[in-house]
Amino acid sequence: MTKSNDDRHPDAEGFQQDLEGLVGYNLKRAYMIVQSDFRIALGVDGLSTRAFSALSIAVQFPNITQSALSRILGIERSGLVAIVDDLEARGLLLRSRIAGDRRAQALVPTVAGKKSYQAALDTAHKHEKSLLSSLTAAEREVLISLLQKIRKNED
Amino acid sequence: MTKSNDDRHPDAEGFQQDLEGLVGYNLKRAYMIVQSDFRIALGVDGLSTRAFSALSIAVQFPNITQSALSRILGIERSGLVAIVDDLEARGLLLRSRIAGDRRAQALVPTVAGKKSYQAALDTAHKHEKSLLSSLTAAEREVLISLLQKIRKNED
Repeated sequence: MTKSNDDRHPDAEGFQQDLEGLVGYNLKRAYMIVQSDFRIALGVDGLSTRAFSALSIAVQFPNITQSALSRILGIERSGLVAIVDDLEARGLLLRSRIAGDRRAQALVPTVAGKKSYQAALDTAHKHEKSLLSSLTAAEREVLISLLQKIRKNED
Repeated sequence: MTKSNDDRHPDAEGFQQDLEGLVGYNLKRAYMIVQSDFRIALGVDGLSTRAFSALSIAVQFPNITQSALSRILGIERSGLVAIVDDLEARGLLLRSRIAGDRRAQALVPTVAGKKSYQAALDTAHKHEKSLLSSLTAAEREVLISLLQKIRKNED
């Protein structure tokens, strides 16, 4: 707990402030660093990180519906619509009708979309390799598996 | 890479889609779960997660300046002002003048602020204990240390 100490300095060694002991706080700070670096790596005119994720799923699962895509990405359907609009405007993705279903639309990557995705995925791997160079390959795997244990709580 | 396969199902076993191999994607999804659960644990009328962090530092380092606080939390000074305003309006924190410095203001937690913080910290620990129950204590420590390695990239 919190022992008030007016003389304590925030950078003092040997004192761990409460937030540092919380998984949530460390997750947030690490996420902010990785997210920001990835955004820079994708470039000002490049895909947003969310568009990258959406395109990734659409390329790997062509003809996926928007509902299925929003479920996989864990984002609101309404939020996804704007992302898909953006990808469509960039000529990377098409919405196509599903026979026998008036409301559902299937997402189909264009040739340019597949190329763009591959380039962005290469960028993602380079960005992680460089940013996470202080972690060994084994540590990176452990990290992913621990994060995936937390993700078991996903709906 | 991405082998297009119209018949592949997103839930198919034995196939790992690209995003799952990225630290960044796993970080984001895990962060979203923990953040959302913590927000719920703090309650509708409770502190925001950012206010909790700010109050935590102010309680542990009374008389800290807003500049130092924003640096520790890694957030913009402008963003912090709104958080401190909120904490002040709730009677948890006071801004006090620093002798000899017209512009800097020191942040001092009130008695109610210290109590509120302690209650929120207890809530945080309970929330993590429950949400992260699938991780052993050792795994939680490994996770924190790996996240802190990534955080070495913080400015």
